[in-house]
Amino acid sequence: MSENLYHEITPEGFGIAIEKDKDLYTKQSPFQKVDVFSSRAFGNVLTLDGLMMVTERDEFFYHEMITHIPMLTHKDPKNILVIGGGDGGTVRELLKHDSVVHIDMVEIDGEVIEASKKYFPTVSSELDNPKVSVLVMDAIEFIKDKTDLYDVVLIDSTDPIGPGEGLFNEGFYNNVKKASKKGGIVVPQTEGPFAQSENMQKTYRLLRKVFKNVAPYCSVMPTYPGGYWSWGFCSDEVDIPLDYRTIDEKRALKIEKTCKIYNRKLHSAVFCVPNFVYELANG
Amino acid sequence: MSENLYHEITPEGFGIAIEKDKDLYTKQSPFQKVDVFSSRAFGNVLTLDGLMMVTERDEFFYHEMITHIPMLTHKDPKNILVIGGGDGGTVRELLKHDSVVHIDMVEIDGEVIEASKKYFPTVSSELDNPKVSVLVMDAIEFIKDKTDLYDVVLIDSTDPIGPGEGLFNEGFYNNVKKASKKGGIVVPQTEGPFAQSENMQKTYRLLRKVFKNVAPYCSVMPTYPGGYWSWGFCSDEVDIPLDYRTIDEKRALKIEKTCKIYNRKLHSAVFCVPNFVYELANG
Repeated sequence: MSENLYHEITPEGFGIAIEKDKDLYTKQSPFQKVDVFSSRAFGNVLTLDGLMMVTERDEFFYHEMITHIPMLTHKDPKNILVIGGGDGGTVRELLKHDSVVHIDMVEIDGEVIEASKKYFPTVSSELDNPKVSVLVMDAIEFIKDKTDLYDVVLIDSTDPIGPGEGLFNEGFYNNVKKASKKGGIVVPQTEGPFAQSENMQKTYRLLRKVFKNVAPYCSVMPTYPGGYWSWGFCSDEVDIPLDYRTIDEKRALKIEKTCKIYNRKLHSAVFCVPNFVYELANG
Repeated sequence: MSENLYHEITPEGFGIAIEKDKDLYTKQSPFQKVDVFSSRAFGNVLTLDGLMMVTERDEFFYHEMITHIPMLTHKDPKNILVIGGGDGGTVRELLKHDSVVHIDMVEIDGEVIEASKKYFPTVSSELDNPKVSVLVMDAIEFIKDKTDLYDVVLIDSTDPIGPGEGLFNEGFYNNVKKASKKGGIVVPQTEGPFAQSENMQKTYRLLRKVFKNVAPYCSVMPTYPGGYWSWGFCSDEVDIPLDYRTIDEKRALKIEKTCKIYNRKLHSAVFCVPNFVYELANG
């Protein structure tokens, strides 16, 4: 057994193991312990309080999924809010969309942003784009007085423990809805269906109280627990995109060409979830 | 770091880590080292030469996928060949289909069957069914003189190293095709798209030489490398089932009710693969 092996062992008793090359960075921020190490398998890897957050090699799964499904479902998304997402991957994907006028990114921990700028240049590449306002503050405070501002809101948060905890409750989701425009779409990350099924079920019970249309969509995510992740499509006015032919072909093809996973047919296929995932999100 | 942690570290430098409860079984068969341990996260776990093969908790992903996609695409699958599959999970899923008259299961390693019967009773449950012939022999020899016998052939093999190596070559696939009836469907497991992309690409290059219609379909598979697995739908006469409405609704609903993942909409959705998977299978 190598001494130089990173493990994430979840409370369920399993997780990923990665051979480390080198520890590159470690800092205790006011919110969490931020670590970066390099690896042959995944390039640079960022963990928060020892939990896997971003790797250079598989971040595209997460960032393409959280971004392009709501962005291409919305007819004309101009003003966007990202909650969390300090690594910058979501902002990078958002800026592929020509319609975007402005993005507010509200990240509680400035150390995550700094670590990403230094060690994940291909992820954080658009954080200095003039269309982006990076606000280092608590999203719970930020959102309280916002009304009718955003076309798309993406909740790119950590798990519901530590600093991410307050982002998984009904009051917060209600404030997010209030901050959205009519016809807006909200997509939170909703945890791993296989490894964190209880968290996922609790999250959907809250989302269904707040939004009229709620549906999970899923993707593989190799470095996350169970290799499997989910996001929740939430809207009062916009239907769940169950038929990919309703998606603007020209816009979708432009995005598709830049992506490792996203394509127009996948857009509706990701909503065809396994039976047990459907039950978690509707039970 | 717990001493009682199972790791599978692939040549790529990462893999799964599972907290062991107890080692239950270990035996060197003529072909490979067969081990079983128990775990809180996955129940009993079977490894071959230290590589993850089956766990009680996530085997359903693999066995539902390899079985129900070809079986429900075929109009009337009666005679089935399973190559490998000694744990019995594929046979269990096959026998949910009323049309099945007979299954030949050809497993090279009798120790795998014995270990599964003892430690995986819910997986091996149908191996003594009178519709099943369990043949402990090398499938490469078995298939040589078989012609026009099977409606569906499932290649439920290990990786292309060790005893599974000879199951990934053009001559073998040609023999499998010869053993199939006109209108038959062949589905081999085709490795992990994320963690074993080279193996996967090589496999599809061979399959495309032998079969007219070849398409990958994918699922999450939490305990396999990268959490992501693929199977190849192969046929000369049967089209790739890209529209789930072509699947017999009554037969599909009967199966769906017994499954943790399979449902009729998923039947076509699993063929909407990420761009990088499409490129691996067609490049």
